[in-house]
Amino acid sequence: MTNLGPAGAPSTTIAAIAGEVGVSVATVSKVLNGRADVAAGTRARVEESLERHQYRRRNRRQPGGSGQIELVFHEFDVGWAMEILRGVEEVTTHAGLGLTVSQLQGAHRPSPGFLGALLARRPLGVLLVLCHLSGVQQQQLRRDGIPFVVVDTDSATSSSVPTVGSNNWNGGLLATRHLLELGHRRIAVVSGPRDVLCSRARTAGFRSAHEEAGIPVDPQLVRYGTFSAGTGLEHGLHLLSLPDRPTAIFAGSDMQAIGVLRAARQRGLRVPEDLSVIGYDNLPLAAWTTPALTTVNQPLRDMAGVAIQMLLVLTRRNELATSRIDLVTELVVRESTAPPYT
Amino acid sequence: MTNLGPAGAPSTTIAAIAGEVGVSVATVSKVLNGRADVAAGTRARVEESLERHQYRRRNRRQPGGSGQIELVFHEFDVGWAMEILRGVEEVTTHAGLGLTVSQLQGAHRPSPGFLGALLARRPLGVLLVLCHLSGVQQQQLRRDGIPFVVVDTDSATSSSVPTVGSNNWNGGLLATRHLLELGHRRIAVVSGPRDVLCSRARTAGFRSAHEEAGIPVDPQLVRYGTFSAGTGLEHGLHLLSLPDRPTAIFAGSDMQAIGVLRAARQRGLRVPEDLSVIGYDNLPLAAWTTPALTTVNQPLRDMAGVAIQMLLVLTRRNELATSRIDLVTELVVRESTAPPYT
Repeated sequence: MTNLGPAGAPSTTIAAIAGEVGVSVATVSKVLNGRADVAAGTRARVEESLERHQYRRRNRRQPGGSGQIELVFHEFDVGWAMEILRGVEEVTTHAGLGLTVSQLQGAHRPSPGFLGALLARRPLGVLLVLCHLSGVQQQQLRRDGIPFVVVDTDSATSSSVPTVGSNNWNGGLLATRHLLELGHRRIAVVSGPRDVLCSRARTAGFRSAHEEAGIPVDPQLVRYGTFSAGTGLEHGLHLLSLPDRPTAIFAGSDMQAIGVLRAARQRGLRVPEDLSVIGYDNLPLAAWTTPALTTVNQPLRDMAGVAIQMLLVLTRRNELATSRIDLVTELVVRESTAPPYT
Repeated sequence: MTNLGPAGAPSTTIAAIAGEVGVSVATVSKVLNGRADVAAGTRARVEESLERHQYRRRNRRQPGGSGQIELVFHEFDVGWAMEILRGVEEVTTHAGLGLTVSQLQGAHRPSPGFLGALLARRPLGVLLVLCHLSGVQQQQLRRDGIPFVVVDTDSATSSSVPTVGSNNWNGGLLATRHLLELGHRRIAVVSGPRDVLCSRARTAGFRSAHEEAGIPVDPQLVRYGTFSAGTGLEHGLHLLSLPDRPTAIFAGSDMQAIGVLRAARQRGLRVPEDLSVIGYDNLPLAAWTTPALTTVNQPLRDMAGVAIQMLLVLTRRNELATSRIDLVTELVVRESTAPPYT
């Protein structure tokens, strides 16, 4: 049984799958279209049969499709999303492709309804930013011949999914080394969510720099939260109220760092004279804070550009040379770091 | 001659237009598709004939088209574009429509090639942000049955183009009244580009507030530039070097205001003790600057929401109740304004 018959010949495969599993053709079709109204057990048996026969829908693989790339964000946040959008749009416009943009309102996985609507638009390819497809959803796209690439800082992504990220451990190491070299000995870290791997990788880099220097890390100076300015303000206020407060804070994002700057101001501390602050991302606005932020450059626009180039290679049915690329992070020293007050 | 024949009947209109003008069918087709390779005189005669016969392409008006809305930005800037994108995407996703996003890299009018690529995607409708279609381009969209709406702060837009804006004159008035009420008498304004009407409207509001208070405006305190932080820094440094420097600066955007904050810091002036600063837009980051910005709220997300709702009404072939809506601007007082130092 195969569905690679001559062009135009009606495929008998859906019927064959239906016969094998013992369900109607309509049910197989519902599973193929990602519809929710199929019992879980039935769906699993149909999926299993489709996978075993490596079923691929031929009509989705024809050239002259929508000419659209789908860019899916986990959310439209303040700086990140715009940098990614700029990097992707530059390439798609040059390639004569349209760019359809959507967001998951903070979720890290598309709902079946969301993905169904996306697939109904028959995109050439899908680029996911800080979000992932489930195993079943990945199969669904493969079956439709729609390639996908992920932009994520989470380097534990399955190697079977082409992913572009950046070296978070190195970013944490560089930022912390800089503070240690300036003479700081009580350094706090406010990282992103504890269950997001990039947060843990940066914190691991923070610890490694301390180990290199033979300086212990005080556990109460290691904090986790969202990447927002609000988290930076909240943890900053708490850290700066400690009896033995830190002389430097390494934030998990530029937005968090902006919240830490606010906390320092509310506590009557000058930056960098009384407190050093380092951000992460190097968004355009990091050069314009008061004082201008020392930060770790995460090359978002380049990451976006590399990811969309990978996706275009896949849409042309070519193989990728490598499926996992981490771009380099670098320290950008501006005004918010200095030796500790003595 | 009409092209409103029974469904499915081949339209003879292009041939009739070609015959009337004395050109080939291919030439009429090129004009319809916005192709550049038609002599200007020929194009004008074809356009004239198409308009006179109110030619409309039937195939573009069928339901079940792309289901895509095109959102065209004049550029992807730091805060504005993301606010608009959020407001539009919320509505299109709810309506089950895809959202295709592009930008003109700072141009205020799409090139023929850009518009041709957009029309080839057969969108349901087009939303333009801070950019406009030429008269010929407007005809092209009308002919294809593709409605369009503009989001712009420029209230001089032709009344035949549905437009959503905000009241700039009122914004300038409110900001300047606030500074005058605090006791400021030497107030500078750094506005957007002089050839953009919203800049002039805000400056007019600035002048009106002075007139109300019977206080003259010093012409050397009225500046124009781009809406960027760099412009704010440059004009800020210059204004703060004047022998009789202003005690307050009203900026044309929050980004400009951030540049002014930087200029004050470079001149060793404290905000708001030595200098009051007001921004414009009320971007999310305005609450997080040091000090937090007093600014004029331009309800960008609401403007985007109203505009896309208008566009959806038009895509359903309904009439709009009104074709020009200005949303209200409001003053948001935070930390960057205070009475002048005495």
